[in-house]
Amino acid sequence: MNINRTTIEQAHERISPYIHRTPVLTSQSINEATGCQVFFKCENFQKVGAFKARGAMNAALSLTPEQLAKGIATHSSGNHAQALARAAKILGVKAYIVMPRTAPEIKKRGVRGYRGEIFECEPTLQARESTLVEVIKKTGATEIHPFNNYEVIAGQATAPVELFEEIKNLDVILVPVGGGGLLSGTALAAAYFSPTTKVIAGEPEGSDDAYRSMKSGKIEPAQSQSIADGLLTTLGNKTFPIIHELVSEVITASDAQIIDAMRLVWERMKIIIEPSCAVPLASLLKEKERFKDQRVGIILSGGNVDLERALKLMTNQ
Amino acid sequence: MNINRTTIEQAHERISPYIHRTPVLTSQSINEATGCQVFFKCENFQKVGAFKARGAMNAALSLTPEQLAKGIATHSSGNHAQALARAAKILGVKAYIVMPRTAPEIKKRGVRGYRGEIFECEPTLQARESTLVEVIKKTGATEIHPFNNYEVIAGQATAPVELFEEIKNLDVILVPVGGGGLLSGTALAAAYFSPTTKVIAGEPEGSDDAYRSMKSGKIEPAQSQSIADGLLTTLGNKTFPIIHELVSEVITASDAQIIDAMRLVWERMKIIIEPSCAVPLASLLKEKERFKDQRVGIILSGGNVDLERALKLMTNQ
Repeated sequence: MNINRTTIEQAHERISPYIHRTPVLTSQSINEATGCQVFFKCENFQKVGAFKARGAMNAALSLTPEQLAKGIATHSSGNHAQALARAAKILGVKAYIVMPRTAPEIKKRGVRGYRGEIFECEPTLQARESTLVEVIKKTGATEIHPFNNYEVIAGQATAPVELFEEIKNLDVILVPVGGGGLLSGTALAAAYFSPTTKVIAGEPEGSDDAYRSMKSGKIEPAQSQSIADGLLTTLGNKTFPIIHELVSEVITASDAQIIDAMRLVWERMKIIIEPSCAVPLASLLKEKERFKDQRVGIILSGGNVDLERALKLMTNQ
Repeated sequence: MNINRTTIEQAHERISPYIHRTPVLTSQSINEATGCQVFFKCENFQKVGAFKARGAMNAALSLTPEQLAKGIATHSSGNHAQALARAAKILGVKAYIVMPRTAPEIKKRGVRGYRGEIFECEPTLQARESTLVEVIKKTGATEIHPFNNYEVIAGQATAPVELFEEIKNLDVILVPVGGGGLLSGTALAAAYFSPTTKVIAGEPEGSDDAYRSMKSGKIEPAQSQSIADGLLTTLGNKTFPIIHELVSEVITASDAQIIDAMRLVWERMKIIIEPSCAVPLASLLKEKERFKDQRVGIILSGGNVDLERALKLMTNQ
């Protein structure tokens, strides 16, 4: 393991001036609905609206001045793209973001808002990767992968660390899993800062590659069918070994369960979360008997959802 | 004035065990959009989802045991109905709520959830008042008016007091005005706890009775045409004199401006507010040049909105 307690502490110190220390909220209605005591770490209130601000900032701040001078690059159509563009803007360097030409205009605007330079490509993983290789060749920029990067993982680990500092004796911490950046960071954070807390992942049923990978012991491909569009990625070769060693289990939830959990949070907590962010609560509700009366931490990963889309999802229109 | 500094301090102490001390949030995007520094006191996270929990609780706790034993009553189709039912449940007494038969089912469920007893009537002010008189005659319950009641006003005053404690040197505090409970409470709180802070009300253009009452010096009737359905009431004979003496001005906003402000809060702050709650920000945005670089407090009054309705309003569907 390349990440130890000190790595995470240093990451936290490094990024603190640039991120929010997000609040931990509780809700009596949700405690009643789940039968346990739930502590929500609200990364939907984080800069760029998602925990991704942490990992991107830590990775950017870990580069040498020479590397930074040539800029940073990634392919992403999600929250990492904005997080990286923001980190580059803060550091006064260039961000090169490869995005599929089909990415929603709102995501592109978000990146341009931080003066990130967008390179459009065909909407395939192959096109994204080859375009990124070209961009890096041309610019000399350093790639910062959305999750398969130890500095990114250490950055994401700072969110659960803050939760562990504030709420003691959690029996369980539940986080969503896509590529596994937040999940591996949380597993390491628990191991070093709250070793009695079990780490459990919530995953969409329609993209249950982490669930299957945990069973088979190797990285399984994703099928990618879910409304939780932030969680359709396959695990990486840096995140999987950490997850396989330290995560207790993966609980999957259906899209209908995810929408119900999302709506519960909107209505009862009066806060906005994106579909991917609702997955751990959906998993908890699905298996709530097992967690009865326990102290459960949930990282609310992000709140970036198009309101039109949210309306359609929650009202079946 | 029947309310002094001590009245408000005692109200605060009295209700503290039963209410949330709600957080104060800021947003860089909204500071950029308004050109000033805005501090949002988030009463949308309050018990029952609105500041009304404060006034109802204070009024109920101010009754004698003999009065309480016979129950408390009101006519309301809004947040006050739930707040009063909740106060009664906490105190182990009956709540009798007169509601128009046309009130949304969700509001009735909210009241029943706190075991409040609902009396339905025709949807006119006259029917509501005469039904309430009957109910009180039959039960001996004490009426707790939604706003025209000094204990309610003192209870609402505790929300701005918390904001003043946390954020010093506010140039302005902006709150919505309907019947004037929160506004008169805020005016008194500012006078006693932050006398250099100007108090300004936000009001829907289509129901601008407070605006006209301030000009004419007497209570003007409301016309009641706005999506801000919590603010359609006329001022009361207890709230108006306080408002007329202590409030600097009323700024009105159109429904389109209210929807824009509501959407801004949902999208940028990731929190859910109801249309009435967006009015002060709409008023600030409308006249933002006048507030440039000032420190502005806004009380976010509540978050009880039907999601379908809200999303339809904001997406024009």
